[in-house]
Amino acid sequence: MNMVDVILKKKAGQSLTAEEIRAVARGAADGSIPDYQLAALLMAICFQGMDARETTDLTMEMMHTGSVVDLSAIEGACVDKHSTGGVGDTTTLVLVPLAAACGAKVAKLSGRGLGHTGGTLDKLESIPGCCVNLSQEAFVEQVRRIGCAVIGQTQDLCPADKALYALRDVTGTVDSVPLIASSVVSKKLASGAGAIVLDVKTGSGALMHTLEASIELAQAMVNIGAQAGKPILALVTGMDQPLGTHVGNALEVKEAIDILAGRAGGDLLTVSLELGSRMLVAAGIAENVQDGKARMTQALRSGAGLAKLREMIEAQGGDGRVCEETAYLPHAAYRIDVPAPREGYVARMDTTKIGNCAQMLGAGRRNKNDVIDPAVGLVMRVRLGDAVHAGDALATLYLNRRELAQDAIARMQEAIVLKEEKPEVPPLIYASVSPEGVRR
Amino acid sequence: MNMVDVILKKKAGQSLTAEEIRAVARGAADGSIPDYQLAALLMAICFQGMDARETTDLTMEMMHTGSVVDLSAIEGACVDKHSTGGVGDTTTLVLVPLAAACGAKVAKLSGRGLGHTGGTLDKLESIPGCCVNLSQEAFVEQVRRIGCAVIGQTQDLCPADKALYALRDVTGTVDSVPLIASSVVSKKLASGAGAIVLDVKTGSGALMHTLEASIELAQAMVNIGAQAGKPILALVTGMDQPLGTHVGNALEVKEAIDILAGRAGGDLLTVSLELGSRMLVAAGIAENVQDGKARMTQALRSGAGLAKLREMIEAQGGDGRVCEETAYLPHAAYRIDVPAPREGYVARMDTTKIGNCAQMLGAGRRNKNDVIDPAVGLVMRVRLGDAVHAGDALATLYLNRRELAQDAIARMQEAIVLKEEKPEVPPLIYASVSPEGVRR
Repeated sequence: MNMVDVILKKKAGQSLTAEEIRAVARGAADGSIPDYQLAALLMAICFQGMDARETTDLTMEMMHTGSVVDLSAIEGACVDKHSTGGVGDTTTLVLVPLAAACGAKVAKLSGRGLGHTGGTLDKLESIPGCCVNLSQEAFVEQVRRIGCAVIGQTQDLCPADKALYALRDVTGTVDSVPLIASSVVSKKLASGAGAIVLDVKTGSGALMHTLEASIELAQAMVNIGAQAGKPILALVTGMDQPLGTHVGNALEVKEAIDILAGRAGGDLLTVSLELGSRMLVAAGIAENVQDGKARMTQALRSGAGLAKLREMIEAQGGDGRVCEETAYLPHAAYRIDVPAPREGYVARMDTTKIGNCAQMLGAGRRNKNDVIDPAVGLVMRVRLGDAVHAGDALATLYLNRRELAQDAIARMQEAIVLKEEKPEVPPLIYASVSPEGVRR
Repeated sequence: MNMVDVILKKKAGQSLTAEEIRAVARGAADGSIPDYQLAALLMAICFQGMDARETTDLTMEMMHTGSVVDLSAIEGACVDKHSTGGVGDTTTLVLVPLAAACGAKVAKLSGRGLGHTGGTLDKLESIPGCCVNLSQEAFVEQVRRIGCAVIGQTQDLCPADKALYALRDVTGTVDSVPLIASSVVSKKLASGAGAIVLDVKTGSGALMHTLEASIELAQAMVNIGAQAGKPILALVTGMDQPLGTHVGNALEVKEAIDILAGRAGGDLLTVSLELGSRMLVAAGIAENVQDGKARMTQALRSGAGLAKLREMIEAQGGDGRVCEETAYLPHAAYRIDVPAPREGYVARMDTTKIGNCAQMLGAGRRNKNDVIDPAVGLVMRVRLGDAVHAGDALATLYLNRRELAQDAIARMQEAIVLKEEKPEVPPLIYASVSPEGVRR
């Protein structure tokens, strides 16, 4: 295969053959195709796109460049959930225990936070003793025994995706639907999932800023599932404000526990139930979304979800008492309110800026090797559409380094836009995408 | 400057600032911008283009990344000619002596052949003793004394262009008008030219295959000249068949001498006079193209052109007797005709294939380090529109390795397409482009 010919073909808007895509994936994985040729091809794909067949081929070929986790020892369909990344989004810690309590098998390989979005592994590690590095055997055994486990990726999954992803980041070629779709789905399939539910975020804190682009991405991923014979369902949900009220690692664990204990609710619970019910459908446990939602709600009310979270935390070496008493979680030395600079309605939030603010306080990483502080972050005290008086708390900062407060307050006041007119509040669930089509 | 932001800006179709373009040129020249980022930017430029201001900025910035030849010691405007590359195109050896005989100063840095097109340096070196490696001082002195010199590039000209050109070749990003235009003009300006006449080829053997693309390229280069304050004029000429009849190094020198001696003519002479007359206009010697053509024709008829070529060859150490007797040029051991496989009209020629055939015989290089054979090549015996009988000679091969004949004959028979109907013969001069506009 001549790589220049492949680049020219895509540049001219033609479809690449399965063989060409295989050669690209392998060449990216083993480094035999120079970065500059991959970069030129990625940019050509940004302009010319890839059709459904090409996107599926790229997904499967990237998956097969590395090892594929074998979950065959687990009875029943393993179902996974993936979010394209949001702020204050800890649906995993809410829906994994609920779905497992309903009988689903959730063997989840999760990631760490980078940039303005948090990572489930960092959140779990904020629980004293909780370990996310299990052997493959211990991982499978735990899922067989209690129905769920959330650990870090230990194996060499999708090296082609790793290479292309790193290159996209530095060549301005991130925002291509087929490239994002194949990257997400290849990793999920490589981690052994039999069925996948996707949460595609849209809005100010999301990868895709427009609804149409988000729906297009959801459709591309659902299509890959249909072509690869793995059920994939997707929701397009709003990221125009943090999903939960808590942003930061231990803070988000606390919110998840509060929800499972019936002490809290709101958008985070709503989205968790929507996603979780689809996981039960994809796993063949629920007949339809309504049935799934009823089962999830029952597991929530009965306390079975909270019990399952405790079981999982303890199975992974963590202090299960946090589920009874969240004071066992690490807590920050200082709490400082962000006052509303004037009266008005909360009209808009720059969610990325809010995520970056939590990161700046120590909750997230700017670079891969940054050390995070599990205790710090912020709690939102307002939602879009709320009316506030001057001086009301817009949010509360949780800090260990008091000197960061002033800058953080200014950033939060910038991120939360107050207007005189009562704004229209954007929807939480924009669309549901399945192989049958898009329902808005 | 953040290179990812520059890439994203161009990807979104925006114009880059002068500062951004300077940073790109310098980063390409000193290697501080990684190839993969340059490759992504080049591909984005292929899709989004560059406006006239950006193209001029890129040209000037690339020029200033290296040394600029100082021709100020030469009285009068130094005028240069550049062709985008053709087959059987030895206009340089015809028009440089004629223009110099008319009083123009031509200090020409030329290139070697690569691929299907020949290079003037290789042609000059086929003349026994002729040297193309002169010191800067000897070069300027020769132009002052006799009005012309053609040598190889010795200085570090346009390192940014070198880096980008090498990258474009391997990333499928060659065919972008602003990239080609800035590459050509930056090198010409760096070699000290005060005025430039360009020959943009169009057709089967040219970089640009369509007339519109060729005119666009000519306009882009003329525009750079206008913005940079250097007169640039361009012709768009046909490359639907070899320009001269002779293809190969010593063979092309022979044809140039035959023309200057009044023994030959045809399309090569026509284009040489058109280009040369514009050189006289650009140099301020002729009032207009008609006047220029009259002066060039006079220099041809009087033998002043041939005398000037002899003077130049001898000044560069070559055997000037070739101008009296071309038998002093190296000649091939075998001459073999390519017979017409059947009766018909010469309807079409694949000029690239004809150039590649001469290269295969040893007249050209596939790789930079290949050694060429000055004597070999081919002489075309037909032009487009000619009628032939089966067995008539379409061309004559000049070889030193007889075993190559069979393959070469087959290639030539493939490259020269015979049809029953008399075809329409494409024009030789398609358009003339100046700052005033395009004249077809």
